[in-house]
Amino acid sequence: MLATKHQNVIDNAVKANQERTYYSQYPEHPKAYGEDAHAKGLQSYQQLLGKPFKQLLQSGETSWTGEEVSPYTQEVLGITYPVFPVNDLLQKAATAGKSWAKVPVPERAGMLTETLERIKDYFFDIANATMHTTGQSFMMSFQASGPHANDRALEAIAIGYQELERYPPELTWEKPMGKTSIKLYKTFRPIPKGTAVVIGCSTFPVWNTLPGVYADLITGNPIIVKPHPKAILPIAIVVSIIQQSLQDNGYDPHLCQLAADSSEHLIAKELCEHPAVKLIDYTGNSAFGNYIESLPGKTVFTEKTGVNAVILDSVKNIDAVMQNLAFSVSLYSGQMCTAPQNIFVPEHGIQLGDGGIMPFNETVQLFRDAVVSLVNNPKMGAGTLGAIQNEQTFNRAKEATQLGGKVILQGAPVVNEEFSNARVLTPTIVEVTSADTDIYEKELFGPVVLIIKTRDTDHSIQLTKQMAAKYGAITCGAYTNDANTKEKITEEMNSVFTPVSFNFTGFIWVNQHSAFSDFHVSGGNPAGNASFTNLEFIVKRFIWVGNRELAE
Amino acid sequence: MLATKHQNVIDNAVKANQERTYYSQYPEHPKAYGEDAHAKGLQSYQQLLGKPFKQLLQSGETSWTGEEVSPYTQEVLGITYPVFPVNDLLQKAATAGKSWAKVPVPERAGMLTETLERIKDYFFDIANATMHTTGQSFMMSFQASGPHANDRALEAIAIGYQELERYPPELTWEKPMGKTSIKLYKTFRPIPKGTAVVIGCSTFPVWNTLPGVYADLITGNPIIVKPHPKAILPIAIVVSIIQQSLQDNGYDPHLCQLAADSSEHLIAKELCEHPAVKLIDYTGNSAFGNYIESLPGKTVFTEKTGVNAVILDSVKNIDAVMQNLAFSVSLYSGQMCTAPQNIFVPEHGIQLGDGGIMPFNETVQLFRDAVVSLVNNPKMGAGTLGAIQNEQTFNRAKEATQLGGKVILQGAPVVNEEFSNARVLTPTIVEVTSADTDIYEKELFGPVVLIIKTRDTDHSIQLTKQMAAKYGAITCGAYTNDANTKEKITEEMNSVFTPVSFNFTGFIWVNQHSAFSDFHVSGGNPAGNASFTNLEFIVKRFIWVGNRELAE
Repeated sequence: MLATKHQNVIDNAVKANQERTYYSQYPEHPKAYGEDAHAKGLQSYQQLLGKPFKQLLQSGETSWTGEEVSPYTQEVLGITYPVFPVNDLLQKAATAGKSWAKVPVPERAGMLTETLERIKDYFFDIANATMHTTGQSFMMSFQASGPHANDRALEAIAIGYQELERYPPELTWEKPMGKTSIKLYKTFRPIPKGTAVVIGCSTFPVWNTLPGVYADLITGNPIIVKPHPKAILPIAIVVSIIQQSLQDNGYDPHLCQLAADSSEHLIAKELCEHPAVKLIDYTGNSAFGNYIESLPGKTVFTEKTGVNAVILDSVKNIDAVMQNLAFSVSLYSGQMCTAPQNIFVPEHGIQLGDGGIMPFNETVQLFRDAVVSLVNNPKMGAGTLGAIQNEQTFNRAKEATQLGGKVILQGAPVVNEEFSNARVLTPTIVEVTSADTDIYEKELFGPVVLIIKTRDTDHSIQLTKQMAAKYGAITCGAYTNDANTKEKITEEMNSVFTPVSFNFTGFIWVNQHSAFSDFHVSGGNPAGNASFTNLEFIVKRFIWVGNRELAE
Repeated sequence: MLATKHQNVIDNAVKANQERTYYSQYPEHPKAYGEDAHAKGLQSYQQLLGKPFKQLLQSGETSWTGEEVSPYTQEVLGITYPVFPVNDLLQKAATAGKSWAKVPVPERAGMLTETLERIKDYFFDIANATMHTTGQSFMMSFQASGPHANDRALEAIAIGYQELERYPPELTWEKPMGKTSIKLYKTFRPIPKGTAVVIGCSTFPVWNTLPGVYADLITGNPIIVKPHPKAILPIAIVVSIIQQSLQDNGYDPHLCQLAADSSEHLIAKELCEHPAVKLIDYTGNSAFGNYIESLPGKTVFTEKTGVNAVILDSVKNIDAVMQNLAFSVSLYSGQMCTAPQNIFVPEHGIQLGDGGIMPFNETVQLFRDAVVSLVNNPKMGAGTLGAIQNEQTFNRAKEATQLGGKVILQGAPVVNEEFSNARVLTPTIVEVTSADTDIYEKELFGPVVLIIKTRDTDHSIQLTKQMAAKYGAITCGAYTNDANTKEKITEEMNSVFTPVSFNFTGFIWVNQHSAFSDFHVSGGNPAGNASFTNLEFIVKRFIWVGNRELAE
């Protein structure tokens, strides 16, 4: 029984999530996976290039499609994926879902944890696939698409396991009626909502996809994964492992299907609008996200666009702060949904730990220097920046010097010793005034950082809050030594459902959200309506139905 | 501390809800409330007639409105209610909400339970007010608007209490990093979504309103109650008690405001579309419910229209079944959202406990006779039927003989000895064929029952399922002695998120849903998107926000 085999893992995950403590089932260090794992993974990845991807346990394709380009080599991967008619996908999903819904919850949880154990053996294949579709560095590709994604998946399994077993499956209910009583035999069944679609994005094709996939599966719903046409391979590998693992254990592999499409013929709308589709998870731009949220009769979970801010008020160690911020804005070239974009600095400067003041211009200069020093560090620069996923982001970032405001640092190429052709551009830093709302009140996706001069910290807080309420925010970094200011920032930002990370220095960055402890996206502002992983993310995927019968 | 005072009640409610066992904090028998309670309640009610309702702790009204008519006397009540500008209501709600959000959860739960204890002292006033606005019998008015509504409110408090305390408010998170570790101090705060509006209906102005009111309040949101203009008094009394109770304990009474309006100038749209309103609970017709569900940026809970069915396959004691069904369709003249409307009977009749068959026509006749016998029973008839809430329902029911099909029983007046002018009409029973979808595929609100002749029980199941999926259903009654048929009905109806009640006879009816055990409306079919009271009903009203700080 897979339920028994993995019971301990699931119990630990439930407990950690409940207590919000540190827990990780899948070590984040590549070294934990053996000496030759890296080389073997690279080899496996390379063997996939230039061929049709045949690992899926799906048949009946009407054509093959593929248009992925490596941001590191700027060459096409040449891999093609089978294309299936939407109706065919939906019919197979419905059939697979019907029997899956009857599988007892502990066995479902065991089976799904088993798929994660199998995925673990392919972390390095998936890492290389992620690198060459998203432009993430190898380390981020490994961690985000491997252990961190698996941990988020396990978190969804654990909460689902807990919630689906919340009520007794059967009981006798007895209502006293004076001398007699009425007895009813009652059953409570969590009924899955129906076929689910999970729409992936081009920057985090696995990490942003697995929570929805596993939340749907644990609650009994069959799913169709619709990846971004430019980042199919990482999730295609994952789906193929899930399918093989399901089949090996006697389950229908069509419980989890891949629905690749092409830029010329996108199928997301056709899928989402189909009456058979009941659940939709979506990561991507706000325009399409808002459209999906507006579809009647669907249960929708979105992560859309946000604009994240940092509030600088006072610091203890200015160098440590600047190094931390420089890393946060440079990591994966600002293409993380958690990356800061707008840094709010009071015009009178920021207070230092020794009681002194660092004037505004010097603060800006220090930040600039920290970025320059990081990106030009031969051991750090290229690895931190990774590559830019697509040409449009690259061009938009290059043109950031034309945004208006004062250009503090112009983005420049950096040599990537391993990939001389990599699409790389260091962050552009532009200083603007608080009146320049047309510049800073939108997401400038990629390596673009704005420094906004404000009257004072209260003004910074006011603008940051306003931005989060209007345009959404996933993170907010803040630096202050003052307890009242800290409480004020917390109150104000929390009131627009934005979490705050205070005084991060050293090996922890505002960009990181840890499974089992941190909620990723609050679900309360325009950055998205869902959260990894709160209860809503799970309980909206099934319906409790109670049946009653007169007991004899 | 109110938290301490009521801790036991809340703990018991949490436990019962978790275990889905029988629990009642508020006895449903009027006798439990003392000998003179009834007379005093009637007197209090009578003193309210013909006057402005001045018990609310709200000021700044711009006019007074009132248009209630007793379904029992068909005379106007003559009570007027203050009318407030929408902006004024919203501003006061926002102010009250701001401090309420900071009240610790146990104290919030204690305060809210205290309001229920205070409401208890007014159960008889509220019962009379309910009777003379909704047309419910005294007994139903007492139970539905009194103990049953309070129990549902307590259920919402209990689940909220449990969920808001789900995560530790603060903790140290430590991530091992080889020889060292990273330590973060984390806090988790459940942040209320914002101002809430609860829109009531004319038939259950308290029972359908309190779950949303208490779910909003326990999760920290200020609320505005917008009753149906023809059924204000019962909930006005409740709101006034809540306000007084809040004020007596040092809280802002504007946490719970009444927003009465008139048929000429309805304010529901203005309220719901206002950007300050974040949460909406609604009970009423599907057209307006669908409009509310479509509003972007709102968290919406609806109970709309459904068409409930009974599937007759086989019975043990045909008389007991017919008596049970006759009561179910007659109770409050079919104006309960849980009342059966469509009774599906196979053309070859139904199987009896002794192995015999009751032919179709005789089954219909037996049902007719059971209804006639019940409604004409001088001790039972008038009290079971109550009165019809409004003229339109009355006229529509009278015209039910023109629907098409074969009229089995024509609705007729019944003498109500206490109220000779009561708006009463016994159920009209019409027999139709399964092809008459235009007749039975819609809600015929009020005392109208259709008997639908089907090929066999499988056909009955198919039609019942189809109806529930397309038009919604809140209940489904079924009678069968066959285990396979029982499982099939359960499977099929549960797949369209409709609970089934099997073989009810005696003092238990399909219409009844018990607090702490039965879910009312599943939330999965067109009858409504919400459920009293599942987790979704609570957790969608607040957002978990986690803040982090580098620990020194």
